Amino acid sequence: MTNQVKAPHIVKAFSEELEQLSADVAAMGGLAESLVSDALEAAATRDGDLAAGVVARDAQVDAMQRDIEKKIIRLLALRHPIAQDLRVCIAALKIVTDLERVGDLAKSIARRVPALNDSEPTAFAASVDRMGKLVLSHMHEVLDAYVTGETARAVAVWERDDDVDEHYNALFRELVRAMRDDHVMIGPGAHLLFIAKNLERIGDHATNIAEVIHYLVTGRELASERPRGPRPEQSA
Amino acid sequence: MTNQVKAPHIVKAFSEELEQLSADVAAMGGLAESLVSDALEAAATRDGDLAAGVVARDAQVDAMQRDIEKKIIRLLALRHPIAQDLRVCIAALKIVTDLERVGDLAKSIARRVPALNDSEPTAFAASVDRMGKLVLSHMHEVLDAYVTGETARAVAVWERDDDVDEHYNALFRELVRAMRDDHVMIGPGAHLLFIAKNLERIGDHATNIAEVIHYLVTGRELASERPRGPRPEQSA
Repeated sequence: MTNQVKAPHIVKAFSEELEQLSADVAAMGGLAESLVSDALEAAATRDGDLAAGVVARDAQVDAMQRDIEKKIIRLLALRHPIAQDLRVCIAALKIVTDLERVGDLAKSIARRVPALNDSEPTAFAASVDRMGKLVLSHMHEVLDAYVTGETARAVAVWERDDDVDEHYNALFRELVRAMRDDHVMIGPGAHLLFIAKNLERIGDHATNIAEVIHYLVTGRELASERPRGPRPEQSA
Repeated sequence: MTNQVKAPHIVKAFSEELEQLSADVAAMGGLAESLVSDALEAAATRDGDLAAGVVARDAQVDAMQRDIEKKIIRLLALRHPIAQDLRVCIAALKIVTDLERVGDLAKSIARRVPALNDSEPTAFAASVDRMGKLVLSHMHEVLDAYVTGETARAVAVWERDDDVDEHYNALFRELVRAMRDDHVMIGPGAHLLFIAKNLERIGDHATNIAEVIHYLVTGRELASERPRGPRPEQSA
């Protein structure tokens, strides 16, 4: 076999490895997204079995992260990627870090489901559901944008993170008021506060992923600080 | 200049670049640690100016992360590190991700200081202070272990994360009880719950950094799951 034949073969295998890497990241994203979706469903319906399933499946997300990280480190060591290929590796490394946390946050929501059993199932269902659907739509959009390489879609999600923060601020105020008005709500309310916070954090991770996609496609960073509304932490 | 002279020169410059990288990460760690320390002090003394300083200085942590990431990407592209050198780069990339979040969490604690003004300054001061000191000691230990390459110290912190979780669980119960007993506590209590949660998360990041140090020094992963006590989310 001559070098002329061998070289394209190596190049082809490398591009296939990078495609496989991106496919693995997308699959991990799909699993993380399904955990968020199921955790919200479990919280809304107080479904303990569904919640337990989310907790169990988070281990798969963690395993996928470890597997993908190993692949990336091997690619870096053996292939010495530069330019766009290096960005594919760095982007994958960053995105799986965010996705691992999204899985953790879904698990954290699922773990609170038993503690919600005491409270009226319909209380706040609508508000949490609205915020949950919004955050899920952001996750779904950035993961689609990652697969298709559509920076504009990623940037659109990045710009809409304020909507998540507004939902969170409103829910925070609503919950504290409910805890003041009906003291039976104090225990479950504390857990609902964290569920809302977890959703806000999942929205932040979608925003992080949007930034990584922008870097991956363009090689440039998004503005280091988005213009934003009142910070979630300032609401009381 | 002959190649024989030139090659060691290049090698020396590379090892210097890696040393500089580790020094940059350690400096970022020192800044993140000081933000946590100051945020706790601000929360304990209701010091609005100190809190505002923490919020302002978090931007420096973010800037350090961006700067270090750029250096790492340049090193990967130009130097094609393998084995231990590659691990130094990957470890730095992972640690700055954790440190950036630690800065965010310190900022989040600082942002809640104004909302605490309504509450009795001494309430929970002791419990939050104890948990804060514990988490700070973990951060300090892992950052020292990173600088000295002492895996055993890093593993010791990793094994002690349960202590942080126990403090968090106790504080969660204490706060919900106080909110039930004295309804004036409901508003500030919600913020204190998040401060406790933020401290618990900072402890998790110290644990993550410990895992990275173990990988950096040994090339092997720590057990993927620590044996642990009751999960923080299960307490009510």
